[in-house]
Amino acid sequence: MRIALGQFNATVGDLAGNVAKMKKIWAQAMEAGADLVAFPEIAICGYPPEDLVYNRQFVSDTRTALEDLAATCNKGTVVVGFVDRGNGGLYNAAAVIQKGRIVHTYHKGNLPNYSVFDERRYFQTGDRPVVFNVNGMRVAVTICEDLWNTQRLTDLLTGVGRFHLLLNISASPFDMGKISRREEVITKCTDVFDCAVAYCNLVGGQDELVFDGRSILMDSTGCVAATAKAFDEDLLIADVREEADGIKIVPTQPPAVQPADTIEEVYEALVLATRDYVLKNGFRQTILGISGGIDSAITAAIAAAALGPENVQCVTMPSRFNSPETITDSKLVADNLGCPLLAIPIEPILAQFSQSLKADPRWTDGGIAYENLQARIRGMILMSLSNQVGSLVLTTGNKSEVSVGYSTLYGDSAGGFGVIKDVLKTTIYQLAEYINERAGREVIPVAVIKRIPSAELRPNQKDTDSLPDYDLLDRVITGYVEEDMSARELVDSGLPAETVERVIRMIDRNEYKRRQSAPGVRITAKAFGKDRRLPITNRYRTTVTDPKKQP
Amino acid sequence: MRIALGQFNATVGDLAGNVAKMKKIWAQAMEAGADLVAFPEIAICGYPPEDLVYNRQFVSDTRTALEDLAATCNKGTVVVGFVDRGNGGLYNAAAVIQKGRIVHTYHKGNLPNYSVFDERRYFQTGDRPVVFNVNGMRVAVTICEDLWNTQRLTDLLTGVGRFHLLLNISASPFDMGKISRREEVITKCTDVFDCAVAYCNLVGGQDELVFDGRSILMDSTGCVAATAKAFDEDLLIADVREEADGIKIVPTQPPAVQPADTIEEVYEALVLATRDYVLKNGFRQTILGISGGIDSAITAAIAAAALGPENVQCVTMPSRFNSPETITDSKLVADNLGCPLLAIPIEPILAQFSQSLKADPRWTDGGIAYENLQARIRGMILMSLSNQVGSLVLTTGNKSEVSVGYSTLYGDSAGGFGVIKDVLKTTIYQLAEYINERAGREVIPVAVIKRIPSAELRPNQKDTDSLPDYDLLDRVITGYVEEDMSARELVDSGLPAETVERVIRMIDRNEYKRRQSAPGVRITAKAFGKDRRLPITNRYRTTVTDPKKQP
Repeated sequence: MRIALGQFNATVGDLAGNVAKMKKIWAQAMEAGADLVAFPEIAICGYPPEDLVYNRQFVSDTRTALEDLAATCNKGTVVVGFVDRGNGGLYNAAAVIQKGRIVHTYHKGNLPNYSVFDERRYFQTGDRPVVFNVNGMRVAVTICEDLWNTQRLTDLLTGVGRFHLLLNISASPFDMGKISRREEVITKCTDVFDCAVAYCNLVGGQDELVFDGRSILMDSTGCVAATAKAFDEDLLIADVREEADGIKIVPTQPPAVQPADTIEEVYEALVLATRDYVLKNGFRQTILGISGGIDSAITAAIAAAALGPENVQCVTMPSRFNSPETITDSKLVADNLGCPLLAIPIEPILAQFSQSLKADPRWTDGGIAYENLQARIRGMILMSLSNQVGSLVLTTGNKSEVSVGYSTLYGDSAGGFGVIKDVLKTTIYQLAEYINERAGREVIPVAVIKRIPSAELRPNQKDTDSLPDYDLLDRVITGYVEEDMSARELVDSGLPAETVERVIRMIDRNEYKRRQSAPGVRITAKAFGKDRRLPITNRYRTTVTDPKKQP
Repeated sequence: MRIALGQFNATVGDLAGNVAKMKKIWAQAMEAGADLVAFPEIAICGYPPEDLVYNRQFVSDTRTALEDLAATCNKGTVVVGFVDRGNGGLYNAAAVIQKGRIVHTYHKGNLPNYSVFDERRYFQTGDRPVVFNVNGMRVAVTICEDLWNTQRLTDLLTGVGRFHLLLNISASPFDMGKISRREEVITKCTDVFDCAVAYCNLVGGQDELVFDGRSILMDSTGCVAATAKAFDEDLLIADVREEADGIKIVPTQPPAVQPADTIEEVYEALVLATRDYVLKNGFRQTILGISGGIDSAITAAIAAAALGPENVQCVTMPSRFNSPETITDSKLVADNLGCPLLAIPIEPILAQFSQSLKADPRWTDGGIAYENLQARIRGMILMSLSNQVGSLVLTTGNKSEVSVGYSTLYGDSAGGFGVIKDVLKTTIYQLAEYINERAGREVIPVAVIKRIPSAELRPNQKDTDSLPDYDLLDRVITGYVEEDMSARELVDSGLPAETVERVIRMIDRNEYKRRQSAPGVRITAKAFGKDRRLPITNRYRTTVTDPKKQP
């Protein structure tokens, strides 16, 4: 039996576009002699459709689109994800299409409702297995999370008899380290069910999420026989054969090159997510402020790789607080990348604002308000130019800054998409090295990498005036934000109590800024956004010393 | 048996503060001879704690706070909501305290996971009833949503034997019309279980949500015997007696005055939610832009009622596009309310910005970019003054504008809290009449009410240049946003197809603006925010004419 996994880039809500893509992939698979073609979870409407499924017209249009696909796929077997209206409500479903007709419908039974997932908000729980035949092989259908609870899956599949292949259609978002967790789960399934596994994943960016593809074919001995491309569309074809020592999988194509390490994964995730956010939202061009610092340089480099440097307008907006290197390094970054650069000094606007604000006698040229004003003038310049030419503003804040609120609301945080929003500062430095290595030249200037981080909003300002060293800061953020560690646990792990308490306080207090921030690419197991839902109004304070003494 | 319902205003995360309030209320109830005191759902830590419950320290601190409360409450019986760590995970729980000890723990069995609720994200489902005795009466404990599914509740309570009182501790947020749905549900329970019902609700604002209190005591014949105050703390005390014809409830105090109609409800909801957001987040003062239009006038009036007029700094920021009435009407509004007014003309800043932006030859003084720039200059002035003096910026956008994106990101949408974000323009006019009637004088000037709505960002601009009449617009928004009606259904209900399609398109396209907007008070059954989770990247388009022809 020849199987084809149609790992493609769906767009949420583009029913006609997604179906057209799948028809084309199906034709290619038929051309290649496939008996079974699988498409990802909810591929008809793109994942996650969120509250779109509350729109009755949307669900019935999805059905119409599915039937349109089925009518075309009149040869072989096709399995595709969609949203099904059944008895008792909506289901996250897989249709099995044979001879142009939907012959089975499977309803997902394990609905994730944690992290970025809200599936119990929308879907009812399925409880009936679906097993079908293709060329003498029996195939059991599952959807994404079904695979991650083998006890539940064992209960579901008890009584269906022997099957050769467990097919899983997924929309599994990327985070650093996810691939190895996925492989472990799939290996466990080959062991428990003594069958091969075909795992077909979605690829592409959707708001915060980026799906990395890397569909997997694993034989019944737990050996990865084939993996599809990472962060790109692919059609993975292989033969599934029953042999004496198990179910074997023999791919028809050479293996796809996989990312060498986590930093390469992150780079590719950022590039794909940025490209998809920009293009799927109808933009071609982007604009961003270039400060001469490393964050804006990396953001520009990612955007240039995603969209072409000609579509990345860089703007340097110096004030009297900027060092001379601000402009020279900005120019160097733009030149290295091949991006257009515009210079708009903010001093005249700053002076006029300050003059007008003196209408309130409490106004002073100095302090936080005056610093924020500078950042906001820059944000407004970018927004004005973007409105004028129809480009999208990219924000340049990294996860370390976003965590502790080291940014100005409506200033440097103003924009449509946060490319490095979930990337810690320490990872930013690794990305800079990777980008230069990949290009084989100094794309991110060494001067920019070596520069001491500064917001340059007052004379001789350095980030470390307000923040701990980034190495230490990032360890607190990783523990507190990503791993739900308490202050006590962080201190017990060897971090200084004063820093832990101060950083946690800053993280907690800046929820209001994050609530109004642009979406950005999620690359960790817990990003800010749908992943982490905290109240703004929140008087809880963890202290290391005595939890009862709350201020 | 004498029961006391401790309807109080909890603050999320303020464990010590909430416990201190409850101790005080308990003492008052004991003084009044109560045998049983009930506090709302998750009252120990405030509702909803959201992802705070992932913090292990938070959950154990909650336990410590509960035990502290229990130790004080050494007389009578107390029922209070908290987050319990049990076998298998966390539970939304009620502790029954007798003689200073926790004698029973009930786990909520019906977990809402729709609308603004995410309870299945956090909690496991309870499946064991708790019934306890107080002075010869048997009391069954339930939590909020448990009451809304009588079939499930019947199954749960089968076998517990006769009980006289169904106690429900709730955190049920307000929306227009909610009170009658609640009364229906409670009436049904008295009928199904042939018992009295004591319904203890939370009161207060928490981010988007406002809890309206209005705790209810209903006798077994379905008659409301007593209702606690609306939008305020209250201690509702009554005797519960078994008589020949059922379980009677005799309150010990005169009935609380209830809002006369929906507009009065909305007004009180906005005032309470605004006061709580500002004060619970550590602010005292607010600032807002006053345009001479009705939206900013209503926002100022609500804020003045919530915080006192001296804490509401009004700022008028005229340009050459404003009519002379902009300043005179702004002054009139501020004077009527007793709020301080500051005037900062934006022309000099606008001119300097425009001059600087000419560095990009594509910049023009006219068009949308130039209009947005004016709104952004105003937003920056307000943010700068708020940063300087430590006040909170209130935004003035209404739900009609927020729906169709008739606002400037980082401009008029800049701010910390959206007072009228969920109030349709047609309701705004009703609020204006109500405010004047309540005050017995012209607080909102008739000139402001009668003025034709305009953003005044170009000569002779009117809202109706871009939008349908508000009556029609609001009907489309109500149907599409609040009632999940499709374009086809809206047209079938009598609305013009062209308008329906155009408005829906505008609503769909402006998700990105709403994603970055400030939280605001929720007063409808579906507000923007946690209630309505739509993808930004979304190519779905409903059309009335032919659903297949998607652009």
